[in-house]
Amino acid sequence: MKIVIIGGVAGGAKAAAKSKRLLPDAQIDVYTQDTHVSYSACGLPYYVQGNFEDYHNLIIRTPEKFQKDGIDIHLQNRVTKIIPEQNKIIVHDLINDIEFEVEYDKLLISTGATPVMPDIKGIHLKNVFKLRTLEDGITLREKLRNSKKAVIIGGGYIGLELLEAFVANKVYTTMIERSEYIMPILDDELSELVQDFVVNMYPEYTSVINKDSVVEIVGEDTVRGVRTENGEYIEADLVLISAGVRPVVDIAEDAGILLGKTGAIKVNSRMQTNIKNIYACGDCCENVYSMTGTPAWIPLGSNANKEGRCAAINICGEVEDFEGVLGSAVTKYFGLTISMTGFTEKFAKKNGYDTVSVMITKRDKAGYMPDVENVTLKIVADRRTHQILGGQAIGCGDADKRINTLSTALIKYTTAEELAGADITYAPPFSTSIDPLISAARLLDEKLKK
Amino acid sequence: MKIVIIGGVAGGAKAAAKSKRLLPDAQIDVYTQDTHVSYSACGLPYYVQGNFEDYHNLIIRTPEKFQKDGIDIHLQNRVTKIIPEQNKIIVHDLINDIEFEVEYDKLLISTGATPVMPDIKGIHLKNVFKLRTLEDGITLREKLRNSKKAVIIGGGYIGLELLEAFVANKVYTTMIERSEYIMPILDDELSELVQDFVVNMYPEYTSVINKDSVVEIVGEDTVRGVRTENGEYIEADLVLISAGVRPVVDIAEDAGILLGKTGAIKVNSRMQTNIKNIYACGDCCENVYSMTGTPAWIPLGSNANKEGRCAAINICGEVEDFEGVLGSAVTKYFGLTISMTGFTEKFAKKNGYDTVSVMITKRDKAGYMPDVENVTLKIVADRRTHQILGGQAIGCGDADKRINTLSTALIKYTTAEELAGADITYAPPFSTSIDPLISAARLLDEKLKK
Repeated sequence: MKIVIIGGVAGGAKAAAKSKRLLPDAQIDVYTQDTHVSYSACGLPYYVQGNFEDYHNLIIRTPEKFQKDGIDIHLQNRVTKIIPEQNKIIVHDLINDIEFEVEYDKLLISTGATPVMPDIKGIHLKNVFKLRTLEDGITLREKLRNSKKAVIIGGGYIGLELLEAFVANKVYTTMIERSEYIMPILDDELSELVQDFVVNMYPEYTSVINKDSVVEIVGEDTVRGVRTENGEYIEADLVLISAGVRPVVDIAEDAGILLGKTGAIKVNSRMQTNIKNIYACGDCCENVYSMTGTPAWIPLGSNANKEGRCAAINICGEVEDFEGVLGSAVTKYFGLTISMTGFTEKFAKKNGYDTVSVMITKRDKAGYMPDVENVTLKIVADRRTHQILGGQAIGCGDADKRINTLSTALIKYTTAEELAGADITYAPPFSTSIDPLISAARLLDEKLKK
Repeated sequence: MKIVIIGGVAGGAKAAAKSKRLLPDAQIDVYTQDTHVSYSACGLPYYVQGNFEDYHNLIIRTPEKFQKDGIDIHLQNRVTKIIPEQNKIIVHDLINDIEFEVEYDKLLISTGATPVMPDIKGIHLKNVFKLRTLEDGITLREKLRNSKKAVIIGGGYIGLELLEAFVANKVYTTMIERSEYIMPILDDELSELVQDFVVNMYPEYTSVINKDSVVEIVGEDTVRGVRTENGEYIEADLVLISAGVRPVVDIAEDAGILLGKTGAIKVNSRMQTNIKNIYACGDCCENVYSMTGTPAWIPLGSNANKEGRCAAINICGEVEDFEGVLGSAVTKYFGLTISMTGFTEKFAKKNGYDTVSVMITKRDKAGYMPDVENVTLKIVADRRTHQILGGQAIGCGDADKRINTLSTALIKYTTAEELAGADITYAPPFSTSIDPLISAARLLDEKLKK
């Protein structure tokens, strides 16, 4: 049995290790254009910030360790073509600049996602960065230490995490986000609160520009600034592009592999594509929402890991169905936690749901405890069925605890009334006697029954 | 409509307030032998410790506020008898030492629970304390400040919280627990870990004695020490009894109200006792486990609050069914969090379940983050159905987050396989890419399928 895996960050690395455990005699090869495999891409912003010194900490398993376990890692080997009818791929060895063919019995595509690079003048100037690979992280960290003024294009998860990294390093940073507020993945009421927090946290190092976008990156050889659609010019010796990511599907598409409506590779619950013996996992592939079974593309390390594991099980001849995803996510900006699971209200509405929602702000623990903080919680239900569709929480208090508690309700069909009857742990250092999530569920239930 | 409520701490106070909102014209009277109503009893250990200065912070709603809202609070008025056939109670005014009768249309019994006071010599000596009422807390805090050596009898939640309070105040404290380890509500593997932590945290102020019990409290007028069954004598100028609580059901029982098999008052899902127009809520009444529908007596403030609310709704003529409880609970000992939901393995076994369980110790967040800590997690399932029955978590890491996440799965029938498919938020400062709860669920699922 010869298993070939394209890509080795999260899903690919996980699948390689799991396959070897299941089929110790299988020949397993991982081809990647990257200079590293099996690392925590989600940890890159914290490495850039300086939360820890050695990037090796991000590496889960070295190529040598893979080798020792009988898995062959081929770094800087880009797969350029899949030939399904011959069960072959074509690989371009980037170091020796040669091409060769590799046969497979089973092929797993785990090519990930790539930052969307806007098609503007100056995008290739020196000190214009993206953050996707470990290499990117190492370069960015080094440059950041000698930077004074930065621009971050795009205010999503990566943008926000890097804003913290930049500001913590006392680099004056302007974030440019085309939406009304940063973190536009959230409903507006919440992203407005996030933006308020960000703007007020370290005003001496932070500026946020909304409803505008960069039309040119200015400089000769090295970046000097950016020019925006609204005519602003912002000086910068470092520009970071975090304007979203897109699934890497080019070689898959060329080979006749179908994409889903999200634009990522379509797989069934066993991670199989439409072509025999070809599987996909991780950020390059589409999934379904657990609550609704509708298409979901949620490029996150947690999903990639689980999908890689599931793909390996099915590749190795056992059977496992992937249960779907919720889009559960969390990040922080200094003391502020931002977390969500399931649908936001705007996403639900866009997908045809008639929604009812509530938003509350409550203390996260007993008011008399010294470290009490607030948490703002919004939960959304379907008006007809009362099913909970999702929730969002932000706050300096324990926001992600409430979202995780909600997330488990979403893997089963759960109504607002049922959620209001949940039994959540209480002690004064941890919660209020009626947890904010229960309060929100009760309010939502009352609203639904009106 | 005349609603009479016996007891006013959590359930009773909640029910009074809720009833007034639902029926603004109702006459609502709360009778209590206590000197205060509507306070956070769960906050008492933190007040004793000195986490905050003013005990008024514990009071949720003063008698004056109740009065203003049209609710009459009768402090230090002990209800001595219920006469259901006449819809009457007999009240003993403790201040003026007079008895009188009060009529009701609806009666709510919320008499709570009371510490079990062992029947030993010296139990009534000065400086032998219990901690149940606000009054108890005020006295204990004052005494603690002038204490050098204390004994705590019983190592459950209250005992442990007060051990922290005592040790934090540099009072040398010996805890005596008759079980093999303290926190015997947990499975032994976990309570052993808790005890290890406690013993090693501040060894200069802490001693724990197991498998022994106090047979005499020694002293003339004031306590000087305790003598144990195994013949030890321990000096103490303060003794705290935290050897469990029992439901206060005497007047209910006298009136012919049925108790359940747990010894607490039996109610249906609308909080009605077997006698017309008489309801019960809070620590004095029995409930059912959400997962199994079997009897549960879980005397906790969170349950009391919810039951009080539910009782009020039904008393006021609307309909609401109480969904049951899980026994979700949390506490801490300095940096160690201890949390549980549902059945422990020993409880499940005692109740006839054939159980399968796993216990794992994992990092609570990405290993490279500076504040990473461990969490030890045990989850238990039914061998036949694979249904998850409960979980316990301890650790200096974020243990209660995992238990709350599990708890929501327990309100619905959820198998280990389903739980393994949960989608829990991940970012390096908050979790590992595969959350410890998912890891545990996967292991448990594999074990169940073997």
